[in-house]
Amino acid sequence: MDSNPVIETLGRRLRLAVVGGGPGSFIGSMHRTAARIDDRYELVACALSSDPTRSLEHGGALGVARPYADAMGLLDAEAGLETGADVVAIMTPNDSHHRYSMAALERGFDVISDKPIANTLHDALDIVAKVEETGLVFCLTHNYTGYPMARQARAMVAAGEIGEIRLIQVEYVQGGKAREADPTGDDLPWRYDPVRGGPSLVLGDIGTHAHNLVRFVTGLEVSAVAGEVGHIVPNRLVDDYAGAQLRLSNGARGSFWVTQAAAGMENCLRIRVSGSAATLEWSQETPTRLIVRPIGMPAEIRTPNGPGTFPLARRASRIVAGHPEGFHEGFANLYSDAAEAIAARRAAVEPDPLAMHFPNARDGAIGVKFVEAVIRSSENDGAWTAATLEI
Amino acid sequence: MDSNPVIETLGRRLRLAVVGGGPGSFIGSMHRTAARIDDRYELVACALSSDPTRSLEHGGALGVARPYADAMGLLDAEAGLETGADVVAIMTPNDSHHRYSMAALERGFDVISDKPIANTLHDALDIVAKVEETGLVFCLTHNYTGYPMARQARAMVAAGEIGEIRLIQVEYVQGGKAREADPTGDDLPWRYDPVRGGPSLVLGDIGTHAHNLVRFVTGLEVSAVAGEVGHIVPNRLVDDYAGAQLRLSNGARGSFWVTQAAAGMENCLRIRVSGSAATLEWSQETPTRLIVRPIGMPAEIRTPNGPGTFPLARRASRIVAGHPEGFHEGFANLYSDAAEAIAARRAAVEPDPLAMHFPNARDGAIGVKFVEAVIRSSENDGAWTAATLEI
Amino acid sequence: MDSNPVIETLGRRLRLAVVGGGPGSFIGSMHRTAARIDDRYELVACALSSDPTRSLEHGGALGVARPYADAMGLLDAEAGLETGADVVAIMTPNDSHHRYSMAALERGFDVISDKPIANTLHDALDIVAKVEETGLVFCLTHNYTGYPMARQARAMVAAGEIGEIRLIQVEYVQGGKAREADPTGDDLPWRYDPVRGGPSLVLGDIGTHAHNLVRFVTGLEVSAVAGEVGHIVPNRLVDDYAGAQLRLSNGARGSFWVTQAAAGMENCLRIRVSGSAATLEWSQETPTRLIVRPIGMPAEIRTPNGPGTFPLARRASRIVAGHPEGFHEGFANLYSDAAEAIAARRAAVEPDPLAMHFPNARDGAIGVKFVEAVIRSSENDGAWTAATLEI
Amino acid sequence: MDSNPVIETLGRRLRLAVVGGGPGSFIGSMHRTAARIDDRYELVACALSSDPTRSLEHGGALGVARPYADAMGLLDAEAGLETGADVVAIMTPNDSHHRYSMAALERGFDVISDKPIANTLHDALDIVAKVEETGLVFCLTHNYTGYPMARQARAMVAAGEIGEIRLIQVEYVQGGKAREADPTGDDLPWRYDPVRGGPSLVLGDIGTHAHNLVRFVTGLEVSAVAGEVGHIVPNRLVDDYAGAQLRLSNGARGSFWVTQAAAGMENCLRIRVSGSAATLEWSQETPTRLIVRPIGMPAEIRTPNGPGTFPLARRASRIVAGHPEGFHEGFANLYSDAAEAIAARRAAVEPDPLAMHFPNARDGAIGVKFVEAVIRSSENDGAWTAATLEI
Repeated sequence: MDSNPVIETLGRRLRLAVVGGGPGSFIGSMHRTAARIDDRYELVACALSSDPTRSLEHGGALGVARPYADAMGLLDAEAGLETGADVVAIMTPNDSHHRYSMAALERGFDVISDKPIANTLHDALDIVAKVEETGLVFCLTHNYTGYPMARQARAMVAAGEIGEIRLIQVEYVQGGKAREADPTGDDLPWRYDPVRGGPSLVLGDIGTHAHNLVRFVTGLEVSAVAGEVGHIVPNRLVDDYAGAQLRLSNGARGSFWVTQAAAGMENCLRIRVSGSAATLEWSQETPTRLIVRPIGMPAEIRTPNGPGTFPLARRASRIVAGHPEGFHEGFANLYSDAAEAIAARRAAVEPDPLAMHFPNARDGAIGVKFVEAVIRSSENDGAWTAATLEI
Repeated sequence: MDSNPVIETLGRRLRLAVVGGGPGSFIGSMHRTAARIDDRYELVACALSSDPTRSLEHGGALGVARPYADAMGLLDAEAGLETGADVVAIMTPNDSHHRYSMAALERGFDVISDKPIANTLHDALDIVAKVEETGLVFCLTHNYTGYPMARQARAMVAAGEIGEIRLIQVEYVQGGKAREADPTGDDLPWRYDPVRGGPSLVLGDIGTHAHNLVRFVTGLEVSAVAGEVGHIVPNRLVDDYAGAQLRLSNGARGSFWVTQAAAGMENCLRIRVSGSAATLEWSQETPTRLIVRPIGMPAEIRTPNGPGTFPLARRASRIVAGHPEGFHEGFANLYSDAAEAIAARRAAVEPDPLAMHFPNARDGAIGVKFVEAVIRSSENDGAWTAATLEI
Repeated sequence: MDSNPVIETLGRRLRLAVVGGGPGSFIGSMHRTAARIDDRYELVACALSSDPTRSLEHGGALGVARPYADAMGLLDAEAGLETGADVVAIMTPNDSHHRYSMAALERGFDVISDKPIANTLHDALDIVAKVEETGLVFCLTHNYTGYPMARQARAMVAAGEIGEIRLIQVEYVQGGKAREADPTGDDLPWRYDPVRGGPSLVLGDIGTHAHNLVRFVTGLEVSAVAGEVGHIVPNRLVDDYAGAQLRLSNGARGSFWVTQAAAGMENCLRIRVSGSAATLEWSQETPTRLIVRPIGMPAEIRTPNGPGTFPLARRASRIVAGHPEGFHEGFANLYSDAAEAIAARRAAVEPDPLAMHFPNARDGAIGVKFVEAVIRSSENDGAWTAATLEI
Repeated sequence: MDSNPVIETLGRRLRLAVVGGGPGSFIGSMHRTAARIDDRYELVACALSSDPTRSLEHGGALGVARPYADAMGLLDAEAGLETGADVVAIMTPNDSHHRYSMAALERGFDVISDKPIANTLHDALDIVAKVEETGLVFCLTHNYTGYPMARQARAMVAAGEIGEIRLIQVEYVQGGKAREADPTGDDLPWRYDPVRGGPSLVLGDIGTHAHNLVRFVTGLEVSAVAGEVGHIVPNRLVDDYAGAQLRLSNGARGSFWVTQAAAGMENCLRIRVSGSAATLEWSQETPTRLIVRPIGMPAEIRTPNGPGTFPLARRASRIVAGHPEGFHEGFANLYSDAAEAIAARRAAVEPDPLAMHFPNARDGAIGVKFVEAVIRSSENDGAWTAATLEI
């Protein structure tokens, strides 16, 4: 990418503060790298850990200008600085997302939040309302929507190349919780803690990604679900699988399956969308291939910046075809799109419409509603349960 | 394969009669080729079509010694010949499977039948009882169990290499009914005819294959289902998709998805089985690869006759590793195994236990029960419905 | 396949005799299975082994009507029978191919011979002349040309869809000789014996397949080579690798690489052909996928009987798309095409032109010339060496 | 990555100046992104274009603190600043690499240079000598060595897991020059200009990558070549393909094939290395999979941070297994390793030995020697030509 739309719009990079993502956090390093890749942000402040000492030490070790001991302190202090942070990125455990998002929005920060937006629908709607009230930008890092070929899929559906959507399959299969000896005791990691992890860890952690990807690619809503959620590993305290049949808003049908207990699997997020004209297939582990199967024509292998790439996908690739981009770049695409939106808001200009495809607070709330619907169906002998959220 | 166990046992090939599979039938040619590949059978008689004239003409054109005008005539006549057929293979439309199987068994023929065994559980159990009563061999051509790598999967599970089974995914996704203009009128092809096609065409046609493959690989039964069956193509008279959550007999959970309406898809039957020690992945369209993902070890690519092949898989391959075998050979493996069983029965010797893994009448009845359970769940708002059949 | 062109033309199947391929032979079982698959032949006679006792015993065990003690006895006796064999298939070690082919042709048999046609160019040209003189059919089992997608590649090139051919890569990489302890002593298996194995075992065994596949797909001749042949495993008596640069008859360039000493490899025969309009890629180990990469368009996955299949490929598939066919079926396609040619010759009618794409004696001689050219270049410090044979 | 070794060592990031890579340059954006990803560098100065006006404008638009009108001006000015650049990265056309590298080294900058190091062996050796004389760090961006799985391959070979290396295949096949209408006239782009592009564009551009990857993975040198280089597209002024047989320093043999004229290809760099114990296969377009084929064991799929990852590969991955990293991250690994080496040099401490696997000036000179050897062999009728460089 040869230009920097944020500098073009604002005359400078956005100033970013990060909350959470301290030592040993997979996602913290990921967020910070994503923010650096396209040079739209300058990381100026951080509160990396809930432990004040570690928070200050680690922030210093990373060379951040203003490390803070705690998140609320950061928000208060930066809000008071003339050249304080513009944007706050939140990557704390799930049960604190709502608190920090609200505090950041109330102080006038644009927000980038890890998913899920909140652990309850009530909290999610709270954020939606605050975003609407303030007009601030809120980007939820359902990062798989940032992959060029996920965007190509969305663009092809939107352009009608797949026809009327009929059938959907989505799966997200991981192996991180396949071993059967879980942590126990007072000091549970939050991903094994039913309290901090939210109503369903497997749905909050990866189910919302799968659900959001369906919505992103198809442009449809999941209107009802019939499913089950539970744990397959004996004696586990949290859920580790969920499955559901889906009904989509246009009458399409779907299959949904997520688990973190599949031995030897890495990060297999796959989607297949069949319409009246073609089927699309994409898998996160081979992200540079989108298989398109038009009726009566040979199947095609679409690649980032390959022939037939739509603008929405093209702007998500930094290189010529054949040079793989991956997880970081997809994540960075959300950061960079959000940066354009934030810069445009601050400069009071219209953002590029192609930048406006990042998941937002409304998407987050719809995801929480979906989680609740699957849980309710599971508790109700698999009965079909409405998942629609009118907001 | 250097030897011919049937000749070794009986001193001659088995004499085979086929019923159905006339001109234009995909499956008829398939059965006859499968019967030829390993030279265990001599095709001596046929009644290929329900149209007597075509039946005789086509039988002659194929060089079969004794073509008949109709199936019941064949059964009666061959039963009366001293060197008449030993075995009858049935590949007529679904609604006549029961009639011909019963007639053949009653006349003392061993039977090879295309699936489903019957359209109703009542009829299926009828056959089960007749097989038990007569002691004849009954082989149901759930042919995907004949692939070497499906057998390797079964053998690895049986040997404990996968550990306790926890999670299963199976899908069978075809595109043959993706186009939205169906035949209409008085002369419906049977696959578009809700009367002859049975209670659910998609479940009878491909759902039973998927269900049987789960049972074959895991050695478990599906104990309950919560699902939906319907048609996604508007105005269609028959079903074209079905999805379900599965509960297995050991408490494992599963996802099941089948459709014939996915544009551009060919014949995507895939299974993933996760146990406490490893995950297995196999896809019919790339049948010579079985991916094994042990916990804490690199994933492996297992191939027919490659290192670590179990005897059950080894006997299902005719060539050294790297020389692909496919659909015909898998189908032939069922014919050849059944031939060994039949020859052993006729010679009153014990068959090779490794030959006894072909699907039988009981498997067929359990498949029909599964179909009925999915339909019942679908009619009952997705409620969990028992699928167990005690026989 | 619903019809039997041989029965249609001759009123009966062809009577086949096989020479070689006794117990433990991989290729013997392969040939006999290939002859059975499409029901064009009846195996009536055999001389399976150079050991007369084993030859008779094994022939009997396989249920062949007339087993013989030795090959020349078979040829003499069958030639004298009124309903003796029509066709002789030869699958003996390489150094006897010429002797049996000549003897068979001289007695009026049509011939199917395993490759290479002969170990020397002199012997190969001898056979070419005899075939021309007698007008008999001679089919050389370069079986990889029988795969549907290899034929689709040939048809696409012939139709101009690839444009002017510019670049070719072919490799054939096996691991059967990767272990470093070779047999020694008086009783060398012929594949380790430089005397019986011909001037270069690796080139005769698999190099001729690779060379023939290039010619089959492109319709071009290899006009010159610059290469090396040798053994990479220390102390080995026979060659185990060969590499060459190629110049094609239209000026295209190519890369050629074959080995049997690549640890852990199975049977990786791959070809890539780039023309001015598109590139084709095909690999024997995944034979149902032909990748087509047109300039400026998405890459395509072509499948047997999938959309856009040419007639030459369509007649090589027995099933609808998505049902994999493999090595046996490709091999059978050569047998079945040869059967059509033989039946047409015997009935004095014109064969279907689509049946006439099987490798013949001239192809065999050109292959031997290629082997000799690579060896000569290797002996001459890699100098460019003509490989053209004008016949 | 949770820590920043450069900040740990130096107390600050390295100050980076870039020369070349202006608007429209693919590689310029790549270098700058690679430098940002791991936060080891601060971009402080740039001279992006040979056009002074564009150079200044574009530098400003990217938000670089000190944009310069031209490269030599940058080098002089930064050398004179107290807190001027530490490191200069060079990404100009090939014919100026030598000039800027020498000028940078003479002024005391550590250097990161795009490949090839120079267009002639004389110039390359000049740089080697200067690096040795000054003790400065010189990193040549043969970026494919930065991929985790290329490093895993190197580590597995070094650990003896592949055994004694026997056979190598490397290919680099692109389609960027497949179209047959080249630019003409006075204003040739440098990649179509035989003067600025060096003695062989295809070898300089991608052949050196392929050659370097062989050396990187195997730890062997190419001792002799027999090959051809030329253009297959008629009337082209520069080379577009090259092929060669290789002899390696331990007696292993190899095949080398590179082209930029293969229609529809993207960026297919593939390597296969066979040793006495196993074969390795890696392809740049699916960089997260390393296939390992041990003799007598199932083939394995190795993944970044998957089981069995060696430390050299582990430090090249930023994320847990299953989250693909790509071209940028591989490129960044070279930048980050070089940063560690530079920081260690400046702090006068020993660098982490695992950081010292980036290509250096000596590697660059050996690459130029290889190019010259292939050209000489091609001019000499394919004669075997020494490629060894003793330095």
